[in-house]
Amino acid sequence: MTIYNFAAGPAVLPKPVLEQVQKELLDYDHSGMSILEISHRSQLFTDLYADTKARLKQLMNLGDDYDVLFLQGGATLQFTMVPLNIATKHHRAAYIDSGHWSVRAIEEAGKVPGVQADIVATSKASGYTEIPQFPDVLKDTYDYLHITTNNTIEGTAYQQLPQTTTPLVADMSSNFLGQQYDFTKFDLIYAGAQKNLAPAGLTIVVLKKQLLTDPNHPKNLPAMLDYTALANKDSALNTPPVFQIYMANLVLQWLETQGGVAGIAQLNQKKAALLYNFLDSSKLFNNPVKPAQRSLMNVPFLTPDKATDAKVIQAATAAGFLNLKGHRSVGGLRASIYNAMPFTGVEKLVNFLMDFEAQHQ
Amino acid sequence: MTIYNFAAGPAVLPKPVLEQVQKELLDYDHSGMSILEISHRSQLFTDLYADTKARLKQLMNLGDDYDVLFLQGGATLQFTMVPLNIATKHHRAAYIDSGHWSVRAIEEAGKVPGVQADIVATSKASGYTEIPQFPDVLKDTYDYLHITTNNTIEGTAYQQLPQTTTPLVADMSSNFLGQQYDFTKFDLIYAGAQKNLAPAGLTIVVLKKQLLTDPNHPKNLPAMLDYTALANKDSALNTPPVFQIYMANLVLQWLETQGGVAGIAQLNQKKAALLYNFLDSSKLFNNPVKPAQRSLMNVPFLTPDKATDAKVIQAATAAGFLNLKGHRSVGGLRASIYNAMPFTGVEKLVNFLMDFEAQHQ
Repeated sequence: MTIYNFAAGPAVLPKPVLEQVQKELLDYDHSGMSILEISHRSQLFTDLYADTKARLKQLMNLGDDYDVLFLQGGATLQFTMVPLNIATKHHRAAYIDSGHWSVRAIEEAGKVPGVQADIVATSKASGYTEIPQFPDVLKDTYDYLHITTNNTIEGTAYQQLPQTTTPLVADMSSNFLGQQYDFTKFDLIYAGAQKNLAPAGLTIVVLKKQLLTDPNHPKNLPAMLDYTALANKDSALNTPPVFQIYMANLVLQWLETQGGVAGIAQLNQKKAALLYNFLDSSKLFNNPVKPAQRSLMNVPFLTPDKATDAKVIQAATAAGFLNLKGHRSVGGLRASIYNAMPFTGVEKLVNFLMDFEAQHQ
Repeated sequence: MTIYNFAAGPAVLPKPVLEQVQKELLDYDHSGMSILEISHRSQLFTDLYADTKARLKQLMNLGDDYDVLFLQGGATLQFTMVPLNIATKHHRAAYIDSGHWSVRAIEEAGKVPGVQADIVATSKASGYTEIPQFPDVLKDTYDYLHITTNNTIEGTAYQQLPQTTTPLVADMSSNFLGQQYDFTKFDLIYAGAQKNLAPAGLTIVVLKKQLLTDPNHPKNLPAMLDYTALANKDSALNTPPVFQIYMANLVLQWLETQGGVAGIAQLNQKKAALLYNFLDSSKLFNNPVKPAQRSLMNVPFLTPDKATDAKVIQAATAAGFLNLKGHRSVGGLRASIYNAMPFTGVEKLVNFLMDFEAQHQ
């Protein structure tokens, strides 16, 4: 039976990449050593690191004014590091609240001593079924405006970026490299890698270099929480997660063969449209999100009752469609259809759901 | 040509473990998914996590009064997290300075607001060729006494633990599970995994549970820096490094087949003795460390001049003995002979060095 993994992350990875990892696992680049044993001070690694960074910047269309960090700790550690490093002039940060992960980002920012985190727009009232309206009235009072570009749990995503004169910061964890944005509009982007880039254990931070040399940059931050200290050592201030960086490199190479971010985003549109069109035409299933703001990556849906939800999940699991259970905070079902989910996987899922509906009328 | 990897970390891993990882890389436990794609919320992972923790505690002879966390960020992030979480009553911490990594731990502790980090003993004057003398006179003035059990760069290690009534905290990164200690003497042990346990990207924290419920535990720490918050979520407050935890599990299973920590420590004694005996008898090579305090894991050595050091490294590399260059801060050579380095590897290295010496007399 072919398995399709619809997990929200860690998630499905491209099959050819997994096969290459398996093939060369005992001997990386004719070194006689596994990539799992390679020193981060070796030429083998520093070459790999430079290549990975260059590929990522090229795929994002970013120039010399941006740097990339390959870190650990996930987006949750970035919730702290962002305000710690860059809420340093006004000591105030503006957050748009579009769901669960925005709330977490705001909570953690509020814990950073001396920083005030303000919610400047929220879609909480609608149950987060849309992206908040945001009329920019921030003026020069905030160090940054923070958005969550894709809301993994609620299934919404920004299709247009907010118009603002305040530096724009994004948690892009769940649609990083899966949806096309003008990445030069951001001052800082962070993303856990375990959706579209690599296995869990790697966090990407893409940021404008000028943030690293800002005169307000605080002295005496803990080294591992200091973007400048980390960038000065090419993310190898201590031992970086070598294997995840290696896998990110392979995934980026694979992404190039898919036509880069633009190419994969087009395919993702097609995959998402297939599923949303079915849900909108279904009498059993329903996606609650405002159509113009639906996520390309995470598609939550519901039946009229929990018992039927559970029945669908059970039958789907038996048929090889795995991890369709919705997040515990919202229930229902959710299909995460990241870059590595093939079109066929979505097609077969839709057929399965169609059959289920027909049989349960 | 057989390769022997003497890197200080990331380092050699047990061959049977690497072979098993390769074999099951596309299909973890008959799930139809790679371990690299497994959700940290799945039963597959939670079972693996519980098993890994149980094996580790058993290998360390630790009871229900200890908890284990599987984190990210390396020992360097622990340099901050330890004082942040447990220097909370006296706001003073005592550090024994036994080399480079002790110095880094002290530097980072000193940055934590409100914490005073005192050096209570140091072997700096001897060039760190020994473990400092430590007559405990601390009384009830410090929250903890911090030691670095094995000094990766200088090649020293504690053979006896300091006698103290102050809670004992250790950076055990480079001899964790490679040298036998009474682990119940410690209140907290932390270790980067990339020496004896797993590939880079995992940090182990073993700690007394009472530290997690201490009434002085600070409120409002960033979640990812808060031992209590992390422990309450079984290290899955956000996505943990699933692959590294899986590999740690396999390495622990392998360690059980080697007779556990006691068994491998005996073999490590044998490996180290072979190399030290040769160095002590050599007219060309010299290990500068006080014999009673030599590391079982990292063996630094020198020839009389840098040109010869370089020549040895070049010839060794050509013969398949890799990564023998000493740390940039001390120069010379260093052979790291962790658990996964077979006795044969050390034997062949000694033969190679012997031949080199004979040919260059």
